Amino acid sequence: MATTLDRPSSDNAIFAAMEPHDSGNFANNNTPLIRNCWYAAARTHEIDRTPLARKFLGVDVVLYRTEGGEPVAMRNRCPHRSFPLARGTLVGDRLVCGYHGMEFGADGACAHLPAMGHAPATASVRTFPIVDRGPLAWIWMGAPDLANEALIPDTHWLSDPAWGTVSGDFHILCDYVSMHENLIDQTHFPFLHPDTVGTPEYARSKLTASTENGQVVIRRELRDAPPPGVYGKPANIMHKKVDRTSEARFVSPALHTAYARVAVGDPDPGEPGLYRYNITHVFTPETNNSIHYWWFNSRDYRPGDAAIDRFMLEAHTQAYSEDVEALQWINEVVRTDGEEQFDLSFAPDKPGLMARRIMHRLAMAEAG
Amino acid sequence: MATTLDRPSSDNAIFAAMEPHDSGNFANNNTPLIRNCWYAAARTHEIDRTPLARKFLGVDVVLYRTEGGEPVAMRNRCPHRSFPLARGTLVGDRLVCGYHGMEFGADGACAHLPAMGHAPATASVRTFPIVDRGPLAWIWMGAPDLANEALIPDTHWLSDPAWGTVSGDFHILCDYVSMHENLIDQTHFPFLHPDTVGTPEYARSKLTASTENGQVVIRRELRDAPPPGVYGKPANIMHKKVDRTSEARFVSPALHTAYARVAVGDPDPGEPGLYRYNITHVFTPETNNSIHYWWFNSRDYRPGDAAIDRFMLEAHTQAYSEDVEALQWINEVVRTDGEEQFDLSFAPDKPGLMARRIMHRLAMAEAG
Amino acid sequence: MATTLDRPSSDNAIFAAMEPHDSGNFANNNTPLIRNCWYAAARTHEIDRTPLARKFLGVDVVLYRTEGGEPVAMRNRCPHRSFPLARGTLVGDRLVCGYHGMEFGADGACAHLPAMGHAPATASVRTFPIVDRGPLAWIWMGAPDLANEALIPDTHWLSDPAWGTVSGDFHILCDYVSMHENLIDQTHFPFLHPDTVGTPEYARSKLTASTENGQVVIRRELRDAPPPGVYGKPANIMHKKVDRTSEARFVSPALHTAYARVAVGDPDPGEPGLYRYNITHVFTPETNNSIHYWWFNSRDYRPGDAAIDRFMLEAHTQAYSEDVEALQWINEVVRTDGEEQFDLSFAPDKPGLMARRIMHRLAMAEAG
Repeated sequence: MATTLDRPSSDNAIFAAMEPHDSGNFANNNTPLIRNCWYAAARTHEIDRTPLARKFLGVDVVLYRTEGGEPVAMRNRCPHRSFPLARGTLVGDRLVCGYHGMEFGADGACAHLPAMGHAPATASVRTFPIVDRGPLAWIWMGAPDLANEALIPDTHWLSDPAWGTVSGDFHILCDYVSMHENLIDQTHFPFLHPDTVGTPEYARSKLTASTENGQVVIRRELRDAPPPGVYGKPANIMHKKVDRTSEARFVSPALHTAYARVAVGDPDPGEPGLYRYNITHVFTPETNNSIHYWWFNSRDYRPGDAAIDRFMLEAHTQAYSEDVEALQWINEVVRTDGEEQFDLSFAPDKPGLMARRIMHRLAMAEAG
Repeated sequence: MATTLDRPSSDNAIFAAMEPHDSGNFANNNTPLIRNCWYAAARTHEIDRTPLARKFLGVDVVLYRTEGGEPVAMRNRCPHRSFPLARGTLVGDRLVCGYHGMEFGADGACAHLPAMGHAPATASVRTFPIVDRGPLAWIWMGAPDLANEALIPDTHWLSDPAWGTVSGDFHILCDYVSMHENLIDQTHFPFLHPDTVGTPEYARSKLTASTENGQVVIRRELRDAPPPGVYGKPANIMHKKVDRTSEARFVSPALHTAYARVAVGDPDPGEPGLYRYNITHVFTPETNNSIHYWWFNSRDYRPGDAAIDRFMLEAHTQAYSEDVEALQWINEVVRTDGEEQFDLSFAPDKPGLMARRIMHRLAMAEAG
Repeated sequence: MATTLDRPSSDNAIFAAMEPHDSGNFANNNTPLIRNCWYAAARTHEIDRTPLARKFLGVDVVLYRTEGGEPVAMRNRCPHRSFPLARGTLVGDRLVCGYHGMEFGADGACAHLPAMGHAPATASVRTFPIVDRGPLAWIWMGAPDLANEALIPDTHWLSDPAWGTVSGDFHILCDYVSMHENLIDQTHFPFLHPDTVGTPEYARSKLTASTENGQVVIRRELRDAPPPGVYGKPANIMHKKVDRTSEARFVSPALHTAYARVAVGDPDPGEPGLYRYNITHVFTPETNNSIHYWWFNSRDYRPGDAAIDRFMLEAHTQAYSEDVEALQWINEVVRTDGEEQFDLSFAPDKPGLMARRIMHRLAMAEAG
């Protein structure tokens, strides 16, 4: 099911172009959060021998690492008197509550209750599956029997030494639905990001949108055009005409990936004919109206080049800061404006609506 | 229906003196806000080519001025993805959304949606009638078909060069009902404003209260008495005995006006025999518990006299600051005290209750 | 009904050891606050000729002292227009509202309403019984006909010159139920207070718990052991072995008392054979999730010794600060964690649960 969305001649609202009776079936900031999903919890290096408190899907969680190096995630709330376990101390692989000294192993079972001299048989704190994958640890907050590590999304390029990656993070006061819609929607580039990624040629280029196995994919091709500065400058190809293929993909509620492939027909001697860029957006709802966000920009040439790293970090930090600001402004309006609004949508919004419809279905299936 | 309220001999609660079964039919901070009313939105000079965000009756509004100088008011929320339009840019007479570049004309219709290459036929943002009148622009947040410019209240003296006017403003964390009651109630003068307007003679003077066409009017006369400093000092008549006539009027939910006429029987040579003062209190609910407030003090002599202006500005800023402080304290008590209270009322409260009853009726008529 | 709780061999949850079907009948931070109880309102010296605003059980109260020295407590809200009376002025024994000058006597009756020239017959502000007892004034916020001064709990040692007392206070963002449970539970000492009162010998000592006339009492005896620093150092008996008897008592929702008796079998010449310490914990709910807290540590030797006072003040301020910090962390978790939790309890929790069950019964009896 691929649809060409480039410069539609009709101005019918998008609803007419999609399945009938579909309006309203799009996730928004009030939709229950999707729990059966692998979400990023932290950068792996953040999880160490000092307990770290962080909230995911509204639940307080404490993260630490065993002496053997395994990440552990458990509720940040002693099952006895609700003391936040992250305020306790780590002794060997056990987290010791700072109030009454209850000791919990990495499996969450209470191993010792000092006031009793032994461990009560039934006491335990809920743990969450958590797995290191490259630069991030991924956590499963949903039904325990559905946790399947094979479902952790592939981001192998983030730890491939052939790729040079720069990265940053934000805590954003917005909902994860708006963030997904922002990422798969590139029609905002010329307006929100006029100084970085928003070239007019790109906004007008041909686009196809499709759903593939519960993912939403949009693809563009742009032939024989000047490269955008953000890709052309670090590769030193601003004087060339290039063919550019790009993809953006709603992978899961936790992940959006994108790539750009820039082909140079007449590379200078010794230079590549193809430059590849992977962009990885990872985010996890803290609450319905706040997210933890990590971004990664990877390139397949000159890894470790400090000047290129600096350029990429600055350019993307600026662009993503613009998104963060806009999403926070919108979230504040949605939460505080005294009059409800059902947002209008148009044909170019179809990719975002496809993702929001998938999120709505996932959320309703869990709630139902 | 005029009632003399001066020093009543009975201490029956006011309810008995009014229509039976009336208790409870007085607006308070929980009453739905009255929408079908012209409210002040801003000083005219605040509305310019930089979009201005302000909330009225709980609704986020953006204000700007066209190239031709006409004021425009529209919801500060793009109908597409709720971006606050005040964060966008003004191009000609169109406000351009900062997210996807949707362009809205002064009539609210979408004139262009860049991602579609043209404007969707049905897209628009709600606009609100807004009209310049002297120093203020007045907005209509209610039912559009009821907006009638002839209903904008008369405040022509504010732009009459024969009158010298000083002015100030406050953002107050209180409800507009309490503000109205405060303004029409002068029995608080000796206690809240002992150093400015609160003379004992005035508090004891004869008062009549009446309703006239949905307005509440109180009038006082005080003969052959020393003038209060706030009126006598700027006119340089503190050595005279004067006759003083004054009126306070609940004009509408948006406006309270008052005047004082100070007559000198034996004016000094070349000096006037009558000094006139108009006081104009304009305020607009931001929410149920906060208001935008603008005040004006006008005199019919020596307009532009800097020393008198300074005196009037300082004296009234002090007095109104005392009202602001008291109203905020009360609002905080009302919102946070753990025990409900139905305030008692007494005969001298009748003018305030008359205004609150009118506001209650207006609000219920809109809600019903 | 006394139960030995020392190192129980069974790990059954405490519920099994108590009355059947009892789970859930324990007060927590959502239980309605108990009103029919004498609570501390303030230190007596805080109540003077400057009106003092303070909230008890969610109700705004103003405290002042008459010219004759009697404490007065009334709602901090004028019955006329809700002005906070603490912002008014005290004239003789009358509190004068700062808005319209209504005057309220120490009995709460309106003695004068200036705008009427006399007092309305029915107007009054609710007063609360309040009584000075030693360093504290005690207030009754409950049903007026149940106020009985004979029920004010005995704390006579706080004003006995034979005892040397140090004292401090905290405003704590926690519920009073957790505070009671914290005080009667000494199994947290080694973990929350490792540097002060938390000796391992003490935590392992024999303990009996009982209920006596609606109070919960736990007692411990420890024979021929080194004294803890907090009691041994100020008495200069760290080189001795001592017998130690201690008690902790849930007296009422407003009060927890404790004592320690330290006996030296072979006192040095001229030194006492017995050292007595009384600890008095007084606290009052401000709201369901905040309390006013005053603590007192009294000893029956060397009253007024500045060095001992300083030592006792520092040691106890540190220990109680640890409690305050823990209770605030817990309260924050309980209020903000997105997943409910029914705390597990174990045999050593029995004293705290006994107190919480009493509080639950008192609250339900008032509500029912």
